[in-house]
Amino acid sequence: MSINSTTADRYPSRVADRPQVLERKEPVIYSEWTPESPLTQEQSKYYEENGYLHLEDFFSAEEISGWKAELKRLNEETRGEAVGHVIREPDSNEVRSIFAVHANNPIFSGLANHPRLKAISEYLLGSETYIHQSRINYKPGFSGKEFYWHSDFETWHVEDGMPAMRAFSCSIALEDNFHYNGPLMVMPGSHKQFISCVGRTPDDHFKLSLRRQEYGVPDHASLERLAAANGIDTPVGRAGSVVLFDCNIMHGSNSNITPFPRSNVFLVYNSTANKLVAPYSGQKPRPRYIAARD
Amino acid sequence: MSINSTTADRYPSRVADRPQVLERKEPVIYSEWTPESPLTQEQSKYYEENGYLHLEDFFSAEEISGWKAELKRLNEETRGEAVGHVIREPDSNEVRSIFAVHANNPIFSGLANHPRLKAISEYLLGSETYIHQSRINYKPGFSGKEFYWHSDFETWHVEDGMPAMRAFSCSIALEDNFHYNGPLMVMPGSHKQFISCVGRTPDDHFKLSLRRQEYGVPDHASLERLAAANGIDTPVGRAGSVVLFDCNIMHGSNSNITPFPRSNVFLVYNSTANKLVAPYSGQKPRPRYIAARD
Repeated sequence: MSINSTTADRYPSRVADRPQVLERKEPVIYSEWTPESPLTQEQSKYYEENGYLHLEDFFSAEEISGWKAELKRLNEETRGEAVGHVIREPDSNEVRSIFAVHANNPIFSGLANHPRLKAISEYLLGSETYIHQSRINYKPGFSGKEFYWHSDFETWHVEDGMPAMRAFSCSIALEDNFHYNGPLMVMPGSHKQFISCVGRTPDDHFKLSLRRQEYGVPDHASLERLAAANGIDTPVGRAGSVVLFDCNIMHGSNSNITPFPRSNVFLVYNSTANKLVAPYSGQKPRPRYIAARD
Repeated sequence: MSINSTTADRYPSRVADRPQVLERKEPVIYSEWTPESPLTQEQSKYYEENGYLHLEDFFSAEEISGWKAELKRLNEETRGEAVGHVIREPDSNEVRSIFAVHANNPIFSGLANHPRLKAISEYLLGSETYIHQSRINYKPGFSGKEFYWHSDFETWHVEDGMPAMRAFSCSIALEDNFHYNGPLMVMPGSHKQFISCVGRTPDDHFKLSLRRQEYGVPDHASLERLAAANGIDTPVGRAGSVVLFDCNIMHGSNSNITPFPRSNVFLVYNSTANKLVAPYSGQKPRPRYIAARD
């Protein structure tokens, strides 16, 4: 179904009238584990099996406090700005996300090139890596809205032209996370299947989708099946903890009415062997602050 | 400020321009504890101190399955009905709540008069009791929306004319509850203070407020202070568990995007010595399916 001329579409989505389940065609970890690997063998196995890994106390309180100060400064700086890479909450004018911080901000650029993260990214993806997307998520107290269930890869494939499942995300908690302030929820094991979605994407869909998802939405029956098979995990931890998760794991988060914000920095590493091609939707690519194309 | 002629307004709310904090004027438990009381001494102390109590496995699987069957039947029966006591989700046509089930439905009427619940209600309120309000909450999977923070008493006082804090709620879980499917969140200890809210209530506000709260909303600073003082608890448990909570405890719930519904039966017991008078807002009372006035 793809009109992409350079690479066959391994995971067609938003083209058929009914959802379809495809087996994953690529490995989850692209390197053989050795004692020199930047994750332990147990951590590697857990990641491979479940599609995510929670690393408590990965960063120090000092590192976190520097990033929080920068986040606060950025929030204030962008408060009045109407620019594409600053996304606001659907029901208020609060900042929801700021994109491309690895490219636009020297402090978060340093974080994206942090040697321990870089080493993990090269181990998991078995190659050199680069940042496909970065953002700060504010998820403010009182009014943070939900992110509905999705596979990032489904969007990156259809809308950005990412050919294969050879990317992962890294979410760095800048605040203590609790079960009750809208933490990341993952369906463990769901990264091993691709759930194709129904409905063609309208042009310039990204402007709305970053605020509220309406396309690339998995069907209820598939979500019920995945949740029944392996349940739902909420890897919560203190500020400084990190969650690594595969590009194809089904994940989302509930709203946050508590007074406690749930800010995090979100980095997506992609393999240099998996660079973007033309979007598989046949539509024009999303802006570079959402998906790096260099 | 009240124009109520029968009873002075102990807890003015929605009349001033700024929120105000008033100390609670009534006891939390209206009886002396004895070994014959229907709660243990530890349970009583916990309830008095925290304003809520979680009772795991209070009802049997058999009792729960009968109520679930009735809930399913009622949901189907009311699907096409446009009647006041059936409330729908703000963004879809899914049933959110059905009110007055203690009065309209023989099965839930039996539950409201369950001897163990009745004994607890008479112990906590120190008098004979009656049902002030009952409802089934569906909180369906995928699309259940949040209930923002509120004190039930604030609404019942202003909009229904409940004079004093001598009532409590009983939430009976008909499904297993998890941290991640939008469970009840309470601020322990918050029942000891009354947070008056800002903004006069429009007429017929109830029609909207049962779907989405906009008046009787506590201010951010008060919520931050209460949460900082004692944190947030999420009393989750298996189907058949019961949460008792004081009429003035600050509580709410996040949305539920998981496939797991969070249905419960909700019963409010009020003391016969605390019957409703004219609403303290000076406005006309809400319908009897929301607040019994007999």
